[in-house]
Amino acid sequence: MKFFSDNAAPTHPKVMQAMIDADRADTAYDGDALSQKLDSAFSDVFETEVSALWVPTGTAANCLALAALCPAHGGIICHEMAHIEQDEAGAPGFYTGGAKLMLLPGEGAKVDAATARNHLAGIRDDVHQVQAAAVSITNATEYGLTYTPREITELSAICKERGMGLHMDGARFANAVASSGMSPADLTWKVGVDVLSFGFVKNGGMSSEALVFFDRDLAAETHYRRKRAGHLLSKGRYMAAQLLAMLKDDLWLDNARAANAGAQLIAEAAGDRLVYPVQANEVFLRMTADEAGALRAQGFDFYDWAPADDGHGQVRLVTSWNQDADAVAPLANAIGAL
Amino acid sequence: MKFFSDNAAPTHPKVMQAMIDADRADTAYDGDALSQKLDSAFSDVFETEVSALWVPTGTAANCLALAALCPAHGGIICHEMAHIEQDEAGAPGFYTGGAKLMLLPGEGAKVDAATARNHLAGIRDDVHQVQAAAVSITNATEYGLTYTPREITELSAICKERGMGLHMDGARFANAVASSGMSPADLTWKVGVDVLSFGFVKNGGMSSEALVFFDRDLAAETHYRRKRAGHLLSKGRYMAAQLLAMLKDDLWLDNARAANAGAQLIAEAAGDRLVYPVQANEVFLRMTADEAGALRAQGFDFYDWAPADDGHGQVRLVTSWNQDADAVAPLANAIGAL
Amino acid sequence: MKFFSDNAAPTHPKVMQAMIDADRADTAYDGDALSQKLDSAFSDVFETEVSALWVPTGTAANCLALAALCPAHGGIICHEMAHIEQDEAGAPGFYTGGAKLMLLPGEGAKVDAATARNHLAGIRDDVHQVQAAAVSITNATEYGLTYTPREITELSAICKERGMGLHMDGARFANAVASSGMSPADLTWKVGVDVLSFGFVKNGGMSSEALVFFDRDLAAETHYRRKRAGHLLSKGRYMAAQLLAMLKDDLWLDNARAANAGAQLIAEAAGDRLVYPVQANEVFLRMTADEAGALRAQGFDFYDWAPADDGHGQVRLVTSWNQDADAVAPLANAIGAL
Amino acid sequence: MKFFSDNAAPTHPKVMQAMIDADRADTAYDGDALSQKLDSAFSDVFETEVSALWVPTGTAANCLALAALCPAHGGIICHEMAHIEQDEAGAPGFYTGGAKLMLLPGEGAKVDAATARNHLAGIRDDVHQVQAAAVSITNATEYGLTYTPREITELSAICKERGMGLHMDGARFANAVASSGMSPADLTWKVGVDVLSFGFVKNGGMSSEALVFFDRDLAAETHYRRKRAGHLLSKGRYMAAQLLAMLKDDLWLDNARAANAGAQLIAEAAGDRLVYPVQANEVFLRMTADEAGALRAQGFDFYDWAPADDGHGQVRLVTSWNQDADAVAPLANAIGAL
Repeated sequence: MKFFSDNAAPTHPKVMQAMIDADRADTAYDGDALSQKLDSAFSDVFETEVSALWVPTGTAANCLALAALCPAHGGIICHEMAHIEQDEAGAPGFYTGGAKLMLLPGEGAKVDAATARNHLAGIRDDVHQVQAAAVSITNATEYGLTYTPREITELSAICKERGMGLHMDGARFANAVASSGMSPADLTWKVGVDVLSFGFVKNGGMSSEALVFFDRDLAAETHYRRKRAGHLLSKGRYMAAQLLAMLKDDLWLDNARAANAGAQLIAEAAGDRLVYPVQANEVFLRMTADEAGALRAQGFDFYDWAPADDGHGQVRLVTSWNQDADAVAPLANAIGAL
Repeated sequence: MKFFSDNAAPTHPKVMQAMIDADRADTAYDGDALSQKLDSAFSDVFETEVSALWVPTGTAANCLALAALCPAHGGIICHEMAHIEQDEAGAPGFYTGGAKLMLLPGEGAKVDAATARNHLAGIRDDVHQVQAAAVSITNATEYGLTYTPREITELSAICKERGMGLHMDGARFANAVASSGMSPADLTWKVGVDVLSFGFVKNGGMSSEALVFFDRDLAAETHYRRKRAGHLLSKGRYMAAQLLAMLKDDLWLDNARAANAGAQLIAEAAGDRLVYPVQANEVFLRMTADEAGALRAQGFDFYDWAPADDGHGQVRLVTSWNQDADAVAPLANAIGAL
Repeated sequence: MKFFSDNAAPTHPKVMQAMIDADRADTAYDGDALSQKLDSAFSDVFETEVSALWVPTGTAANCLALAALCPAHGGIICHEMAHIEQDEAGAPGFYTGGAKLMLLPGEGAKVDAATARNHLAGIRDDVHQVQAAAVSITNATEYGLTYTPREITELSAICKERGMGLHMDGARFANAVASSGMSPADLTWKVGVDVLSFGFVKNGGMSSEALVFFDRDLAAETHYRRKRAGHLLSKGRYMAAQLLAMLKDDLWLDNARAANAGAQLIAEAAGDRLVYPVQANEVFLRMTADEAGALRAQGFDFYDWAPADDGHGQVRLVTSWNQDADAVAPLANAIGAL
Repeated sequence: MKFFSDNAAPTHPKVMQAMIDADRADTAYDGDALSQKLDSAFSDVFETEVSALWVPTGTAANCLALAALCPAHGGIICHEMAHIEQDEAGAPGFYTGGAKLMLLPGEGAKVDAATARNHLAGIRDDVHQVQAAAVSITNATEYGLTYTPREITELSAICKERGMGLHMDGARFANAVASSGMSPADLTWKVGVDVLSFGFVKNGGMSSEALVFFDRDLAAETHYRRKRAGHLLSKGRYMAAQLLAMLKDDLWLDNARAANAGAQLIAEAAGDRLVYPVQANEVFLRMTADEAGALRAQGFDFYDWAPADDGHGQVRLVTSWNQDADAVAPLANAIGAL
């Protein structure tokens, strides 16, 4: 059983079926009946009027959002381990026309308000220095932690004071919502988020992510930017169908709950091996090479991660929508038996 | 029956089935078994070693190709009606970092060598003027015409003389190949094409186009550019599956032949209404508003096009892979009866 | 005597003296006393509050203006012979991040409102097409013609209707003002111009052009863009000194009048050789190669230009601030004697 | 007496005179006789064939160099306090089309080879991560330290191994050369530098810096990039005149020696107040606010710098070409008397 990444999981059968059901001629691009329903469907989920666009990757979602929030000569505050910094091949620089990522440290890949304020205080208000225009946070973070509404509010307060925008990379937003027990609204616009990259592919989708604008004025020109970036697929109905299937009857929440439950079971078995609290579907464990080898010999696979300070290695395990508590029980048992 | 665009047609059942068959966990991005087969599969089709990448849109394919061929300070010669100029929202400017499209006139949206040479002769060799770095042609053209190998050779000769690259936008390359009766090799690398955007979505695919590099050195950095542009989907196996299904047993050719046959039947019925010879699956007809209305009243729909010089209007009809001669017979009859 | 370009003329002695007078330590960049006077000095000239920045080239002035008016995904309407299209090496694409120049034909390199409206009418309001965000005109034009206030008003009316900006490339704005007898205000903000590239180098300066914002909100971020483009010289006082010397006692107008007078004398001698009316300091003449050779043999030099339709050649003669009517009399006589 | 920055010093009289001497009509841009001498003059200085271009700012020089060395999707290793990171308003992002600065720590703003190797080892060779394409170092550094030839060689060895380029920001290259007693060649191409931003403005020039390519193939397209960036001034002879005047009879070295001597005298007086060894013309001193106030009361001015760890403040003093040992003696005495 593989725990490399939720990225590699199969597509949920309901999503696949929705694509099959969408297999008929319709208006091209996003003029089709399904794509036209997205604003409404996402507005229901978020309990406010939003604009929602499908895009095929999280990188596209994130970087279209950043381009909407930050001019080419501006800066974007994010964590030094943020996906936009570490894993998108420089896409933020491409989409924004060269804006600067301003990298902050922070436990568990979280941006905290005090660190952000301190960084901003160090930027002189003169033309020689890049001025920050946006903050981008990842929820759940790259290390599987979630932000509380209060933490987000503290960051959005900074943004409001300075006329900056707040972006949330929600590649695992579903896991964060499921974990928190709060509503999608509680974790986004109600606490000052302007744009959300709402991930579905890691959570049972195939190739469709949603870019959700709470500030709908920002959405308008993003339609042009999406096309200009080559992300306006001609048969958009298959993209919209995936998202609508995920939203229907809260499939997205069910899937996230299943993955989270799998991660929790592993966490419980792991005890003090845990590097971070498990608040979503990622588990980081201290583990020697021999121990990791023993697990792999039993058919479990996963990535080695950064070496821990105490000399032990670390491994990362990510559970997927089809790896709930029952499914991962053998792994949990094996970890407990190490 | 709709003839707006082959863009809006359903997905071919074999393509859909291939996606269903690919629905299992595998390595993310393009590390999966299917994606790894692409170079080989396309090398077979082209009878030479090529590098092939999947991308979700023709705009992405075209503009990644142009970015590989042209520096930010360079120019790209193309037809003034080329898709990259008319319909991609400025994507070439985005991907190249601001290169200049150098627009040429030409019958039927074809770039001819004499016009290209004449344009190049007008560019002074000094730093005040943008120097041309590439030529991009569309085959079949936006008006449904095809290039002969000789015509392409004349253009590639210009490119070779000046160290320029030659790109072919093959959104309807399948239709051009089917129409010509020649091999894919005959219309590409054998006549000097460096990169081909090989379209599948208009021809029965769902969301996967191929970017084929005959100059494989150019392909290497395109892998980075694709990711940086947000076009490296995480579940790439569904992308590769589409392309492999289209190549299998020449489904791509069968589909294109069907669409071409439909267009031919309409052309025969249209007689001297034809604006251009029909060499692929697009038909442009002179037609009054009343005549177009009469057809629409019978259930046929299509786009109005530019007004003809003689005062008649023009309409555009595009046939799809599922609109072969039998399927379009009612339309052909209706046109004949106007 | 050379008539290649006013670009190559010496620096006016008063400008040189002002630079010598500025040769002392002061605050770096544009914090010095002279640079701080620019807004006020230009506000006096334009009879309204403006923001004015020095930049070392007309290309920088033009393209910073365009970047302020047009997003990366937008378009800029200009004449097909505009300097920004023909002679700036693609700088508009660089500064805007890939915006599209939308090229219009027009007599004497003038953009007329009817042609602009017609072009705009052809742009569909959909995301596949680049939407126009600005109009850029050159006054005096690249062929030495000037715009009337009415002509500019017709263009700015279009801009206002559509939320577009209006830029004037005034590399030879001084010549246009001198020729018209109107005030700088009459030819700019009073008729709807948002930003002016106000040229001084061709008119007796050394290395300092002014970028004048009538819409002062647009100026704010241009200070960042100027620095980011490497155009914030550290010893800015020498830049400001040039502009202030040019404005003092209307030296800029005196210089332009002198150059215009030289051009007029040539025009009078040229009679029906004139290709365009002479409204500034550029003269285009029909002339055979033998005739041009005869003039060159007498010590006059100039550029050959595009061949005329009637089989005669064309030459271009540009007069400079130090080539007034007296100075060019020998050339006028020589032309008259051809 | 002001010690804010060598940026704000007057122009050396010989440079000013050279500009006056160049005040005649000549070919525009860089076709004039003086500009045409630059390659030869700089080749003499560097004892090898180089290509040299004038540009009006160090930011332009640096960023044109980086654009020549690094593609838009690449990365540039530099110190976290490097001028390109701290003080150029994001210009590297603009010129490269969004490349990433990879920031390293290091004593005295120096990049050391071990830290660079370690950073490079952390970059996975996959398309998700930006791959480093160049290293940029500043000599003398932003803290007034110089690199030894051995240190540069260690960095260039890394570059050669990986096909990366090596850029030197030599805003104070003259001071580094003067300080080291070595030849310009010893500190550049002989130790693997590909491109040098050779600063003159801080060292007695007015508005002209040199961009020197040891890899002359890189220079060719930079001529296009310079124009495209708006840095090709039309009256280039005044730019070339400044550089030639600085090179003549080693004026650049004399000026740098004078500034360095001034800094040394201050350093000697400062004793253990010194934060860094003084190897060029910048002096960083530990100083309380009261002490700084006392100096200011005596007419000396300078910038406060970052607070020192021990609770003392820090100040920065920069000497200019006209502040040699004699000139700064009063300041040295005042510091000694604190």
